Amino acid sequence: MGERIKILLAYDGTRYCGWQRQPDQPTVQEAVEAAVEKVTGEKQPVIASGRTDSGVHARGQVCHFDVERASVPPDKYSLALNRYMPRDIRILESCSVDEDFHARFSALTREYRYYLLQGRVADPFIGRYVYSHSRIPSAEVLDRYAETLLGTHDFTTFSAAGDPSESRIRHIYAASFFPWRGCIVFRIVGNAFLWRMVRSLMGTMLDFGQQEAPAEAMKEVLEARDRSLAGATAPSRGLFLYKVVYDAGNVW
Amino acid sequence: MGERIKILLAYDGTRYCGWQRQPDQPTVQEAVEAAVEKVTGEKQPVIASGRTDSGVHARGQVCHFDVERASVPPDKYSLALNRYMPRDIRILESCSVDEDFHARFSALTREYRYYLLQGRVADPFIGRYVYSHSRIPSAEVLDRYAETLLGTHDFTTFSAAGDPSESRIRHIYAASFFPWRGCIVFRIVGNAFLWRMVRSLMGTMLDFGQQEAPAEAMKEVLEARDRSLAGATAPSRGLFLYKVVYDAGNVW
Repeated sequence: MGERIKILLAYDGTRYCGWQRQPDQPTVQEAVEAAVEKVTGEKQPVIASGRTDSGVHARGQVCHFDVERASVPPDKYSLALNRYMPRDIRILESCSVDEDFHARFSALTREYRYYLLQGRVADPFIGRYVYSHSRIPSAEVLDRYAETLLGTHDFTTFSAAGDPSESRIRHIYAASFFPWRGCIVFRIVGNAFLWRMVRSLMGTMLDFGQQEAPAEAMKEVLEARDRSLAGATAPSRGLFLYKVVYDAGNVW
Repeated sequence: MGERIKILLAYDGTRYCGWQRQPDQPTVQEAVEAAVEKVTGEKQPVIASGRTDSGVHARGQVCHFDVERASVPPDKYSLALNRYMPRDIRILESCSVDEDFHARFSALTREYRYYLLQGRVADPFIGRYVYSHSRIPSAEVLDRYAETLLGTHDFTTFSAAGDPSESRIRHIYAASFFPWRGCIVFRIVGNAFLWRMVRSLMGTMLDFGQQEAPAEAMKEVLEARDRSLAGATAPSRGLFLYKVVYDAGNVW
């Protein structure tokens, strides 16, 4: 009897060219699909909630895959798959889901977090996971730019060349900065995101903060829908796909 | 005018064959000495408080080196050296010290910490820094073994073959387990340590805990001064050289 398996995935994206399978490049998708084949004996595509860019990390990526001949209890796929994967990719949980569940199309919201480190040397244990810069504006200053993102907007300004999305309109439920263990963290929750959108938002807010620009400046570049007005794209190192929510009953 | 520089160093030891320079192997010493040469133009040995083994991390290694022609303000060596080092080694602080300061011989105590993770998947962000095992005894159980280590003992049981130390007598000031962010942490402070001593102690305590052996068992193998009685050596991944103390006025 076939079944659909949902997995919760964390990865250190440092040495991967993002989620999506590409010829001759190490990708997270390739590593997970190889492990699924080793465990099940079946070549099955593994579908994620969304692709993450090269070097971006995930703490709560969600994927699904099908198995034709179930051989492993659904909650044991995490253990079984981890045995065949590099240490920088770990399955944290696994379970069986209805066949109408789809990791990408059933997702209601995605949450990303971006970690900034102000003015001190990033020790080697967090250096892979934060963007450290000598001039990081305060959380209060950055928060004023973040507030302008709330609601429904056309995010063309913060999109990447070649993004295939039909619409660039996205809804942002939450966007704010908070201090955490010596870092400043940007938390953004939206229905979905364009390619590199979070890093482009982050880079633009950093630029504006350093220039002491008013919050209106952020609002103006957003409304202009002009990619040339966005600031630098912040490095992927500080970015985490933090959580994907499917429905009210979703525990992970 | 020449001067002696003291540096505080953190490193992720994963991809290094320990501190000490070796032919054809990546070592932390080699990376730091190469950076010193790039910054000062001088080939100077960099002396550490002690060598760390292959794969062992440091949060608070202390070193010194001499410069004949001072060209960088002492507190700026951290910035200058970091520019020439891989991201998994970072100089956190630097300062000038008297010429009678010696990173190894002036050190009064060394503190190591060993991180254990009980019964859950280590996510990829801490997986390089903890020993995760399905059967980790409780901190209370482990604490009873640790207590027997306090004071002055001959640690031959927990020494490695080939250790060149003249004496195997060491004084332990503190040895205990405490819970920290989902981990159990072993903290041990001593005047000095033999090669692999902390990992051998850790492995033996884990073995005893799993066998539910009484605290006297630990005391007996310690007093036997017989290497064949020690348990397995715990993996280097979980071990950190955490702090080196020089004198009461020492801030780092």
